[in-house]
Amino acid sequence: MVDFEELTTFMQSKGFVYGPEPSIYGGSSGFYTYGPAGKLLKNNIENAIRRVFMKHDFWEVECPIVMPTRVWEASGHLSGFTDPLVSCSNTKCGSNFRVDKLIFDVDPKAKVKKSQYLDFLKKNNVKCTSCGSNLNMELKEHDLMMKTKVGIDTEAYNRPETATTTYLPFPNYLNFFRDKLPFGIFQIGKAFRNEISPRQFIIRMREFTQAEGQLFIFGEEKADFSRFESVKKKKLPFLKANSKVVSHLTLSSAIKNKVLKSEAYAWTLSTAFDLFVEMGIDPKKIRIRQHDEDEMAFYADDAWDIEINLNSLGWEEFCGIHDRTDYDLKQHEKFSKTKLHAHSSNGKEHPHILEIAFGTDRSVMAVFDSAYNDDKKRGNKVLKFRPSIAPIQVGVFSLVNKLNDQTLPVYDLINDDFHCVFDKSGSIGRRYARADEQGIPYCITFDFDSIKGKDVTVRDRDSTKQVRVKIKKLSEVLGKLLREEIKFKDI
Amino acid sequence: MVDFEELTTFMQSKGFVYGPEPSIYGGSSGFYTYGPAGKLLKNNIENAIRRVFMKHDFWEVECPIVMPTRVWEASGHLSGFTDPLVSCSNTKCGSNFRVDKLIFDVDPKAKVKKSQYLDFLKKNNVKCTSCGSNLNMELKEHDLMMKTKVGIDTEAYNRPETATTTYLPFPNYLNFFRDKLPFGIFQIGKAFRNEISPRQFIIRMREFTQAEGQLFIFGEEKADFSRFESVKKKKLPFLKANSKVVSHLTLSSAIKNKVLKSEAYAWTLSTAFDLFVEMGIDPKKIRIRQHDEDEMAFYADDAWDIEINLNSLGWEEFCGIHDRTDYDLKQHEKFSKTKLHAHSSNGKEHPHILEIAFGTDRSVMAVFDSAYNDDKKRGNKVLKFRPSIAPIQVGVFSLVNKLNDQTLPVYDLINDDFHCVFDKSGSIGRRYARADEQGIPYCITFDFDSIKGKDVTVRDRDSTKQVRVKIKKLSEVLGKLLREEIKFKDI
Repeated sequence: MVDFEELTTFMQSKGFVYGPEPSIYGGSSGFYTYGPAGKLLKNNIENAIRRVFMKHDFWEVECPIVMPTRVWEASGHLSGFTDPLVSCSNTKCGSNFRVDKLIFDVDPKAKVKKSQYLDFLKKNNVKCTSCGSNLNMELKEHDLMMKTKVGIDTEAYNRPETATTTYLPFPNYLNFFRDKLPFGIFQIGKAFRNEISPRQFIIRMREFTQAEGQLFIFGEEKADFSRFESVKKKKLPFLKANSKVVSHLTLSSAIKNKVLKSEAYAWTLSTAFDLFVEMGIDPKKIRIRQHDEDEMAFYADDAWDIEINLNSLGWEEFCGIHDRTDYDLKQHEKFSKTKLHAHSSNGKEHPHILEIAFGTDRSVMAVFDSAYNDDKKRGNKVLKFRPSIAPIQVGVFSLVNKLNDQTLPVYDLINDDFHCVFDKSGSIGRRYARADEQGIPYCITFDFDSIKGKDVTVRDRDSTKQVRVKIKKLSEVLGKLLREEIKFKDI
Repeated sequence: MVDFEELTTFMQSKGFVYGPEPSIYGGSSGFYTYGPAGKLLKNNIENAIRRVFMKHDFWEVECPIVMPTRVWEASGHLSGFTDPLVSCSNTKCGSNFRVDKLIFDVDPKAKVKKSQYLDFLKKNNVKCTSCGSNLNMELKEHDLMMKTKVGIDTEAYNRPETATTTYLPFPNYLNFFRDKLPFGIFQIGKAFRNEISPRQFIIRMREFTQAEGQLFIFGEEKADFSRFESVKKKKLPFLKANSKVVSHLTLSSAIKNKVLKSEAYAWTLSTAFDLFVEMGIDPKKIRIRQHDEDEMAFYADDAWDIEINLNSLGWEEFCGIHDRTDYDLKQHEKFSKTKLHAHSSNGKEHPHILEIAFGTDRSVMAVFDSAYNDDKKRGNKVLKFRPSIAPIQVGVFSLVNKLNDQTLPVYDLINDDFHCVFDKSGSIGRRYARADEQGIPYCITFDFDSIKGKDVTVRDRDSTKQVRVKIKKLSEVLGKLLREEIKFKDI
């Protein structure tokens, strides 16, 4: 296990994530800035997500963040998106607490219904955790949505999720795809939740980036889905509801044994799995957990989560895959009075939506956690990002400062093709250590032999081994290494 | 000239931009969705921006959108970021109008001070433009910021610009760059302005994407800036304040003749110019216009705008380049009580900030406007995006449907490397026309000769010319065309 505090402190010190922000003004919990290293990492992760979605024929859209009240009435967020709250009776303290959190702290396994919340607090004599006073025995509903205003006085909200906004241009999608279903749409963008107690760094934020893919498909086509063919032999690790053991099943046997309900859902699940592998998460650290009956949204027909075993926090949820049926389009048709059906072989029909929903901040945390190594022997931390995800791709060094002028043309040669840094300060060992701590997969060094040999050393971050490569071959070799077409030992 | 209405209608019909959104709920002016084609275009433009910034050693960050009140007090937005408003006296109508807009409609050249606004309206007998009633002669200040709440009751705002949020982590940047100045930071992200009358489609929106680069540099280093060397011979088109003629000057003569105030500013200006050329805007359609005295922010030392001559709207502003001096860091130091200086050779000093500020939505509009051609001879529209920016890179067709099965392996061969569509419906002429209207630069067609010849035709969007290319060479040839390493006529 790695200490979560140690991990996040390291992320801050190395320019990955700063916060809570704005820190010079004291900070506001749940808000963070991606620094120069972190933003490169986040971009690379989001581009990996784009690659996987596009390969699976999903098309990206970008919808507004601010949307009027009516949309959130239709989606159900306006009435149902609240946290139960109690406050401290000491007016000088005035702290507020999420009741479910207080209950969890007393008994992590307790399953208490909302109507029993206050009784539970009384029975267990729960006090204010800030000042120790009694709590006001009054349950308040705290709205998780951030309200704002458009124009002179029209109420609107910062979206609490991207998905709802993705559904609304449905008639335009139909036009773009010339009325042919199924089609896939995805969105990567900001969402806002006014949590009372944001926690765990960038795992639960008030402002965060969501990514979600939505497959629009007619209900009767879910069972017999042509793209399922290409993934049916793939084995995935399933943890069924009420089970404690993961079973590794091919998708076709998962369908046959009714573990999953439809071929289209199985394909969607497999796409979601691919997303995390593409980011560089070890497949052995991933499992797919079925929702318990009481976790499942009332409209969902099938629902599983992707969980990842973090070195710091253990198993955490990273992605939900839901068969949302025809609920969303019917609901928005009802509230907007706009027809939201398409024409299937049965006539007019509301397509079903199969959804992959996750957060890219949480993904950054997973990737960072899995890359982080405290190499005691080497005496420094090493961030083992997979080369295609690494924020900085190549470190360029000259052995001694008087070789800087001769090293510069090498830097210029490769700087257009790769993201490079030319680090000139400190001993060569210090520079390698610094590169390890930024997760730079390959460092090249220009030394005295380089002048005659017209070559440089290429050093591999993970093994610390070095080989000499001709300067004229450098771009090609680095390209192949970084695109993961060859391994370092095969140079 | 191209009709702006025709242009935006075409953008909507081809899946570039939808709105105002949410359109199924009637729409809210100033909010738009990028559809499947438009989001690809916007991503490509934003990636072109990233390429230029990174090549110039700027590092990207991502800061929160929602920031507390104190930040906007310091930046000056809280007190000064309002529009002057009058409303209709007829309570049934209740329309609100921006006074400066009403004045402009009466006399586009009028320069009226705020204290004279009401007198001007009275003298010109300006009425409500919706119902014709009198206007209430009372000036209101309409707040352009979208207010919201964080936690139980902490006031906060959706940021009205990204730049302020970019400045705040300054101490963290110093740490990342190991106290070495100058350094460059950029941010691409959402900003919000509650305009009373958003207009001109995605040119003036209420929710929009800003991009800005900030060069942090000590004041005394601006005059003698080493990176200026590489651009000093570059000629740019300057339109000086109070001048009507553009002069093409090298940057070094612009410095010598005191057209520009510092080498660092000249380099920043040149970087901004590169951004628009990289997007595919013809340099001949760009000019750099100096701010008049009364346009310039009180803290600005030098300020010019990049203007582009649109086919639809004529000259429009697209980017501002400002020498903001040490104003921002001093201001945030004062309000946050956090030291925001660095150590120069003169001791403690607040760095100056040279800023490039623009919007990526407006950039999409410029790129689309410049690509749009109504080719009467061809009988369809042609979007002539530069190949590296085009949303869809390759169209794949089979001459007749019975060749589809043999075409599929060709599609699979290139689909990993390029963004392709396999279009199977309609005549080949119809499919070429459709590809032109999406701006697809190259289309390949598998025909009867392809079976024996193991080749396909590659068709050039701009000339409609075709050449045959061996299938095994296809990836290489398309790659070179799309990276603009070769021209079509050189195949």
